[in-house]
Amino acid sequence: MKKLPDIHDIREVTRSALFRVEQLKLRFSNGAERTYERLAGFGQGHQAVMVIPMLDDNRFVMIEEYAAGTEDYQLSLPKGLVEAGEDLLDGANRELKEEAGYGARKLEHLTEFTLSPNYMTHRMQIVLAQDLYEERLEGDEPEPLGVHVFSFDDLPELITRPDFSEARALAALYLARDTLSGRNHS
Amino acid sequence: MKKLPDIHDIREVTRSALFRVEQLKLRFSNGAERTYERLAGFGQGHQAVMVIPMLDDNRFVMIEEYAAGTEDYQLSLPKGLVEAGEDLLDGANRELKEEAGYGARKLEHLTEFTLSPNYMTHRMQIVLAQDLYEERLEGDEPEPLGVHVFSFDDLPELITRPDFSEARALAALYLARDTLSGRNHS
Repeated sequence: MKKLPDIHDIREVTRSALFRVEQLKLRFSNGAERTYERLAGFGQGHQAVMVIPMLDDNRFVMIEEYAAGTEDYQLSLPKGLVEAGEDLLDGANRELKEEAGYGARKLEHLTEFTLSPNYMTHRMQIVLAQDLYEERLEGDEPEPLGVHVFSFDDLPELITRPDFSEARALAALYLARDTLSGRNHS
Repeated sequence: MKKLPDIHDIREVTRSALFRVEQLKLRFSNGAERTYERLAGFGQGHQAVMVIPMLDDNRFVMIEEYAAGTEDYQLSLPKGLVEAGEDLLDGANRELKEEAGYGARKLEHLTEFTLSPNYMTHRMQIVLAQDLYEERLEGDEPEPLGVHVFSFDDLPELITRPDFSEARALAALYLARDTLSGRNHS
């Protein structure tokens, strides 16, 4: 394992309502010095969670939501922030109910993803949801989200769609497919 | 297809050396109004590219680099920004040579990923690189990157490693596996 660089200064450069930028001064083990910036505090300290809601071992539920970054409606998986004092799996189930109108009797933490570990501190927990039942909770969305059912057989077509672009959702779906087919246990 | 919200104001909230935050005022088609923030300009207008370097149809090359966001060494795929006036595939090949010490005789654009389309404008092009040969170009890294060879058979073990967390890299590898096994053409 390589020796970690020495971080000899971290300071906040700027912040907005949602984002906080830090500057780091680093000295690598070979003596090289660098000043880096990173996005910190996106999500304000709460755990972020993404849910893969499975109707059976092949079909899953996706939501369709307006995405202000790409300025279009995008297909993705239910996701959100775990609230203060809330258990990760409870938060996952609440987001599932708010965004997709389903609850899950079986919830399993699969892994943790980063978005861009070189530039962002952000981490997201990936939760597999099974044994679903219909239950809707009121969320804070400006309009009802579209709810669509796809299957793993649709993945080759989905990846060609411009309204399905989020790498985390695709990685989570591939991971669920491998997990449910037993490929990750062989 | 749903009617897009009306964006009636976009203004810059703050910026740093690397990041730029915008505020958007939106009116949804049902009349609901929201003020959103998004990360814009990460990458400063240049196309971002990630390369999957295949040694054969099963083995691929990963790099090991210090990640300032997670403060550890992370395994990922070679990536970077296409330079002004540079073709996407030429930029992919240059990054491959700088970061992994390989060039590719065959480069193919597979898809475009977003990071977090609700909150970021960022897009990344995913390029499959085959028919590799050894060639190293000098990059601007503070220290030489680790270069490691894995195969698709290692994916179940890789996803359990805390030093392999980047969702884009995992999605790209799954996509390459499906593409090379013909699963995406059936």
